[in-house]
Amino acid sequence: MKKLINAPDAVVGEALLGMEAAHPELVVDHELQIIYRGDAPVAGKVGVISGGGSGHEPMHGGYVGMGMLDAACPGAVFTSPTPDQMLAATKKVDAGRGVLHVVKNYTGDIMNFEMAAELAVAEGIEVKSVITNDDVAVEDSLYTAGRRGVGVTVLLEKTVGAAAEQGRSLDELAALGEKVNSNGRSMGMALTSCIVPAAGSPTFDLGDDEMEIGIGIHGEPGRYREPRGTAAEIAERILAPVVGDFPLQRGDTVLAFVNGMGGTPLLELYLMYGEIAKLLDARGIQIGRSLVGNYITSLEMAGCSVTLLRLDDELTELWDAPVNTPGLRWGV
Amino acid sequence: MKKLINAPDAVVGEALLGMEAAHPELVVDHELQIIYRGDAPVAGKVGVISGGGSGHEPMHGGYVGMGMLDAACPGAVFTSPTPDQMLAATKKVDAGRGVLHVVKNYTGDIMNFEMAAELAVAEGIEVKSVITNDDVAVEDSLYTAGRRGVGVTVLLEKTVGAAAEQGRSLDELAALGEKVNSNGRSMGMALTSCIVPAAGSPTFDLGDDEMEIGIGIHGEPGRYREPRGTAAEIAERILAPVVGDFPLQRGDTVLAFVNGMGGTPLLELYLMYGEIAKLLDARGIQIGRSLVGNYITSLEMAGCSVTLLRLDDELTELWDAPVNTPGLRWGV
Repeated sequence: MKKLINAPDAVVGEALLGMEAAHPELVVDHELQIIYRGDAPVAGKVGVISGGGSGHEPMHGGYVGMGMLDAACPGAVFTSPTPDQMLAATKKVDAGRGVLHVVKNYTGDIMNFEMAAELAVAEGIEVKSVITNDDVAVEDSLYTAGRRGVGVTVLLEKTVGAAAEQGRSLDELAALGEKVNSNGRSMGMALTSCIVPAAGSPTFDLGDDEMEIGIGIHGEPGRYREPRGTAAEIAERILAPVVGDFPLQRGDTVLAFVNGMGGTPLLELYLMYGEIAKLLDARGIQIGRSLVGNYITSLEMAGCSVTLLRLDDELTELWDAPVNTPGLRWGV
Repeated sequence: MKKLINAPDAVVGEALLGMEAAHPELVVDHELQIIYRGDAPVAGKVGVISGGGSGHEPMHGGYVGMGMLDAACPGAVFTSPTPDQMLAATKKVDAGRGVLHVVKNYTGDIMNFEMAAELAVAEGIEVKSVITNDDVAVEDSLYTAGRRGVGVTVLLEKTVGAAAEQGRSLDELAALGEKVNSNGRSMGMALTSCIVPAAGSPTFDLGDDEMEIGIGIHGEPGRYREPRGTAAEIAERILAPVVGDFPLQRGDTVLAFVNGMGGTPLLELYLMYGEIAKLLDARGIQIGRSLVGNYITSLEMAGCSVTLLRLDDELTELWDAPVNTPGLRWGV
């Protein structure tokens, strides 16, 4: 296991020490493992929090800051955080206007965020949740009933976070979150597995000349395996189900997001983006905005995912709004 | 070879198609393989260009834009670009105040940039060069006489690029570049090799339980190999030579930059940053600014490097100045 770590069970806690040292504008609760905006709670603003297993960095801790999240709760690698973390985060970021929970659709995350929401409500805090389930690869999966939440989560945290800065209400933000999720679709693929530090061996096996289409971000099984294809073939394999699921129409405008799983060089991600852009162009779909890089990862897995978000003026404006987080930053 | 590519010899050209599609504010000359700021030449500004082998993305193409480079010339993977590319870029970005070449110290890059500079001067363009040679690992190396240029190049392109936006002269920028290089030191390490697409097999072999300390960004030999250590041990192995080479003094303030080689998860890079911060603190060295992530990579190599840049008010202000490139963006 070739990793830059000290001990498998200390990885997340020690990475949080590094986050805190690198980003003085954030505050880390090391006991509960929560990353906060330094200025939380922000007066007049609905709080927005998320969380999930570690190993997907920069998601979610790297999206804490002005214009995105008020707090993130990292679990152990590929393991849901606890209701205790989520409750503490909810209480701390509430400025009296309520707190939105952004939850990726995995059974553990759903269950623990629900429990935290109930406890927070019992303490008088208004809480709503928005669930992302944008992965079109499979209907049910290891860890998930229904579709998995993947790349749209990044775009939702950005756009809903921007709307929260504008002072929108909890109900408005929950509705906006539903809108983002329902206008987004994703699918991923893997060339290699990854190694969870506490396990010490690859999450799954994949032959030297095989790839898996429709992979989950924890290595959950996808749609099928086949011999490794060219970038052009892979692009068609993962784009066609995404476009077909909306279905997108000629003339639609999208944010096109090519995400790296962690172990694939940026050079290849740009090459893939070129293939995706070509396929969208051939279908008469306009690219309004783009994002290329490692934004929701699976440790050192090689591979990529494609997320499309159908844009309108509102979502475009929220995407362009200033953001100041370790993972996404512009306008400030 | 598990890569998202179509054909090994088409990788760079096709990645440039993706860069162009993803970043409409850039212009790509596909025939010569040059990435330009869309508004080049910028009136009243000295042009700043760089270039080098591909495979280190986002360096250099990802640093083209307001506040950094006016153009970047990518070569084939781990191969110097040609004088033709550099000459064309120099001519195009010259707005009458001359052009600065930022060159990493590798024999091919040095030779080709020198030739391009001579040809440009013969055509009446004023050209100066600044060479980075911040890698303290080894004195001479495969491809290099003297020290290799690595992580400081990113910081130099950012700070000198900001100074160029302020309207400083070519002489002033060249002097600033020398100042940045002389105040910066780096050292890297690898846990795994990487595969150059045209070669199809690993650049070097490294045992399952070995690491290489002092590795170059093309897999050039480092100082020594030893059994894989903990993050804390690795941090000390690469930080001590860097600090000792300046040498830094108690009370100095630095920009601390923990860079990923490409295949190491961000979670581990933050963990490493925490270890580096601890070691700097123990030496009484202040961290004024930080950078953590994949900024000068070696394809999918696992490992990291540490770069320290001694800061003063001038360099801090130039670092903080607005920048708008695919790889680094803030303030706009």
